[in-house]
Amino acid sequence: MDGSDNLVKLRHSASHLLAAAIKNLYPDSYPTIGPATENGFYYDFDNLTVSPEDLNKIEGEMSRIVKGWQGFEQLVVTPDQARQMFSENKYKLELIEELEKKGETITLYKSGEFTDLCKGGHIDNPAEVLKHFKLMSIAGAYWRGDEKNKMLTRIYGTAFESKDELDKYLSDLELAKERDHRKIGSEMGLFVFSEIVGKGLPLWTEKGAAIRREIERFIVDEEIKRGYLHVYTPDIAQVALYEKSGHYPYYKDSMYAPIKIDDEQYMLRPMTCPHHFELYLSKPHSYKELPVRIAELAKLYRYEQSGELTGLIRVRSFCLADAHIVAMIDQAESEISGALDLISYIAGIFGLKPGEHYRYRLSLGDRKDEGKYFKDDESWEKAENTLRTVLNNQHVPFFEAEGEAAFYGPKIDVQMKNVNGKEDTAFTVQYDFVMPSRFKLEYTDQDGSKKQPIVIHRSSVGAIERVVAFLIEHFGGNFPFWISPTQVKVLPVSDKTLSYAEDIYSNLKELGFRVELDSRQETLGAKIRDGEKEKVPFLLIVGPKEAESGMVSVRTRGVGNGPAITLNDFIALISKLRAEKSLTLAI
Amino acid sequence: MDGSDNLVKLRHSASHLLAAAIKNLYPDSYPTIGPATENGFYYDFDNLTVSPEDLNKIEGEMSRIVKGWQGFEQLVVTPDQARQMFSENKYKLELIEELEKKGETITLYKSGEFTDLCKGGHIDNPAEVLKHFKLMSIAGAYWRGDEKNKMLTRIYGTAFESKDELDKYLSDLELAKERDHRKIGSEMGLFVFSEIVGKGLPLWTEKGAAIRREIERFIVDEEIKRGYLHVYTPDIAQVALYEKSGHYPYYKDSMYAPIKIDDEQYMLRPMTCPHHFELYLSKPHSYKELPVRIAELAKLYRYEQSGELTGLIRVRSFCLADAHIVAMIDQAESEISGALDLISYIAGIFGLKPGEHYRYRLSLGDRKDEGKYFKDDESWEKAENTLRTVLNNQHVPFFEAEGEAAFYGPKIDVQMKNVNGKEDTAFTVQYDFVMPSRFKLEYTDQDGSKKQPIVIHRSSVGAIERVVAFLIEHFGGNFPFWISPTQVKVLPVSDKTLSYAEDIYSNLKELGFRVELDSRQETLGAKIRDGEKEKVPFLLIVGPKEAESGMVSVRTRGVGNGPAITLNDFIALISKLRAEKSLTLAI
Repeated sequence: MDGSDNLVKLRHSASHLLAAAIKNLYPDSYPTIGPATENGFYYDFDNLTVSPEDLNKIEGEMSRIVKGWQGFEQLVVTPDQARQMFSENKYKLELIEELEKKGETITLYKSGEFTDLCKGGHIDNPAEVLKHFKLMSIAGAYWRGDEKNKMLTRIYGTAFESKDELDKYLSDLELAKERDHRKIGSEMGLFVFSEIVGKGLPLWTEKGAAIRREIERFIVDEEIKRGYLHVYTPDIAQVALYEKSGHYPYYKDSMYAPIKIDDEQYMLRPMTCPHHFELYLSKPHSYKELPVRIAELAKLYRYEQSGELTGLIRVRSFCLADAHIVAMIDQAESEISGALDLISYIAGIFGLKPGEHYRYRLSLGDRKDEGKYFKDDESWEKAENTLRTVLNNQHVPFFEAEGEAAFYGPKIDVQMKNVNGKEDTAFTVQYDFVMPSRFKLEYTDQDGSKKQPIVIHRSSVGAIERVVAFLIEHFGGNFPFWISPTQVKVLPVSDKTLSYAEDIYSNLKELGFRVELDSRQETLGAKIRDGEKEKVPFLLIVGPKEAESGMVSVRTRGVGNGPAITLNDFIALISKLRAEKSLTLAI
Repeated sequence: MDGSDNLVKLRHSASHLLAAAIKNLYPDSYPTIGPATENGFYYDFDNLTVSPEDLNKIEGEMSRIVKGWQGFEQLVVTPDQARQMFSENKYKLELIEELEKKGETITLYKSGEFTDLCKGGHIDNPAEVLKHFKLMSIAGAYWRGDEKNKMLTRIYGTAFESKDELDKYLSDLELAKERDHRKIGSEMGLFVFSEIVGKGLPLWTEKGAAIRREIERFIVDEEIKRGYLHVYTPDIAQVALYEKSGHYPYYKDSMYAPIKIDDEQYMLRPMTCPHHFELYLSKPHSYKELPVRIAELAKLYRYEQSGELTGLIRVRSFCLADAHIVAMIDQAESEISGALDLISYIAGIFGLKPGEHYRYRLSLGDRKDEGKYFKDDESWEKAENTLRTVLNNQHVPFFEAEGEAAFYGPKIDVQMKNVNGKEDTAFTVQYDFVMPSRFKLEYTDQDGSKKQPIVIHRSSVGAIERVVAFLIEHFGGNFPFWISPTQVKVLPVSDKTLSYAEDIYSNLKELGFRVELDSRQETLGAKIRDGEKEKVPFLLIVGPKEAESGMVSVRTRGVGNGPAITLNDFIALISKLRAEKSLTLAI
């Protein structure tokens, strides 16, 4: 739980206040339970029908009541007393029954006229302190989270110790909502879902695809420059391959059902490792060739429950910038270091800084948990130390977490902070000493003997779908020039300059820029408004004056109108922005 | 069957000669049947064990026997006479039985000492004419092609009317074998197969992937320049989508088994059309926006029998440069014309010329076959005329073929000729008047009414796997610079110039060229030999003289050593070759 103890108490107290207000306004409803949560609190009620419009009225009642709440009075009661008190509320009776069975003390807490069954944990002076709260939303929730039980009405709220904190929370939330990649994605027409195609399977329009393609090409090119061997391997393979790798038992539940082809069972691949190992095995290797860095922009398939699917963030098929580095053990440190260098280079291109936007987590194995982790204490020790050394040498912010490793070795997780401040593992760099022996990966050493390499599994950026979702929210749709879906929009002032506008359009198109021509019969004002709504970096306004002089008037996103410049100067400007992957629109 | 009647007679006669030689050398064997084929002839024998080393001896026996063959003498016999003649050969007895049942005349043909049951069709003077033959190979073949029958020994041969023709055939065959994409692919290390990954699922090494990536990017960029909207859609979708499109009954047998996800059935997609239609449907369209050209580099999955799988040519998953153009009916002609322009532009980039390397086939429907073709005579008429008009206006070689259309409309097939001269449909441009109504595709016309567009399904180049296989064979591995897997190899003469060689390597790598450094302790001669074997366009030889002067000595593939030039001049040269996608290595 996030927040200080006092904040938790404040929010729990607020949930009592909410229940009290509901009982006043809707006497036939039954309060059930109401805990504090990470960002506020909720309370679940039976026999309550409310709509979002009612929340204001309920907040008003809460404000009225709380003035009379001087504190929370504790009453210790017997089970029978409690039952008598809540004789009409079967939910409370069920809770009392449980407390009785466990032999726990039963306590009630009373504030003003309202008494609730409760374990405690409140603030002392609600009338003074419990002022900065807000009811957020209404949802359905099964009693005790079990879908076999009755659906109750849940009211969510939040509370803070000061008005400033509440206001900041609400405005952050508003910003996050404004920047939600699903909202911006829909407004900018970047991707859609189709019910008949299926859940969790986005269809990228040409605009969204442009962002994705630019990022994919950039990563592939950068990795190739850094010595990665970029390959293509099949998206399906025989089940036997994943049995050989040992992934099958660990991933079975997140893999899709097998596909029978002739007499063989095939699967949509959930990972690329065994595919890359088969490529490594296709020829012998000498120590001189190592490290062999096999990389792929790989489509992967993992099952996600339909309730978990979220825009581009949680999908059922995703494209991972994946790689497997086969290395000699004494190359491990420099290879992991190189992988982290690449990660911070790519993050930097998007303006993301370590510490501010992301940090690393060193995920260690639990030696005792042999069901979850491959048994080889010495290798674990060595691998974990290698990762720790690299992180220390990189001088980057990181923390350690026990029991978060992969089954074949420890890993470094890249923890990205999204626009809500929520931190998630975006992708990983993993040290693997298990697969090389499973796949009999080997190399011929200097002395002619066969040796076993280690493998580093790594991504440089994560799943492209999540990267794009993240960047949509990070930039709020105001993308850097090189990944803007539409980079330039040409706005002829009237039909008189349409042919000049068409020339500019063709010229830029031929140079590979993503350009649109707004040839509608609309006023210039309307065209500008629409272009700005679409977050196009540059609007080129071309009237008779510009047409005559071969100039364009440039309106820059977030800046406004600039002076007229020659088309060639404009092309030089945007060519530079594109080549340099500039984060701003000025050079 | 290819070839004149006389050639067929010659080859059929040669099969008699083969059987006669076999009976002389292997008296216990049983000749069964021996027809002429497209490229020669074969004869199947029971109870015969021969190895490729025996073919010379058999050829010798054929040459010896044929000297005594003045002609083929026809004998008309009764079924009983025939049975008596072949009483020990159950295969011939089976054939006689059938002829008797059908009431056909039974004929035998006798040459020299050898008599065979035969319908006829021979040359008149074998001793004079039947001189230019060759036995090619041995294979197993089931009696009458039925795997429930016994496996016989088949000997393949060929025969020509002149020595020159035979020699040309054999040398063409040798060339085709030399250029077989599987052979070159393996020698150059472009792709591999893995038994445990699965049949028909190539794994592309970094070298093969480089060719593929260059082609893919070129096509995507070119299509975008030509107004295509390049999208990404999922490789799987619900079965319901293909039922909606009407593809399901036609493609069921070539689709893989469904995958159950929760309660829904999903399939690996065999085509993209319905995916693109769902994208089209995601927003309303006005006549002003049409044509909407939705394109994708799409992975598709189609079942192929394991016996049909051939290198990259027949695979179970392939990547198609696919597109669907939603257009108003009066835009059909110009859109199809544009599609053909793009096809010939891309073919031209690879040096392929209409008439020489490919031609078009206008595939028409058969109005009477309502099981195979959607019933709408008027639309068929109109669509077929449109395609014919476009082909006539393009002044390109084409022919017409009845009954080869898709179920939803006629199409233009691009017939590519491979290095053997064999012609295959590589990809198509299809006119579709069925899907728009199935998917309720529509647009708002100028008068505000809703209208139904037509759809053109087209590829610009076909399946990338087949394109690469074709290009490997077409160029014999000597690829144009821009798609060469390794473009430049730096060969330091000794360790003394290694650091200069490394500078050159890094310099070219940073510029995005595919460059290798041969730092082995080998002689320059060995390094050059290996570089040439790998078909690298440019070998840069750097000795002390070059290092001192900042020059490189350039050895060009197929040309040899050139003068030393500055590294900058070399970079200018290869930058131009790359940018211009030059077919030669000179500028």
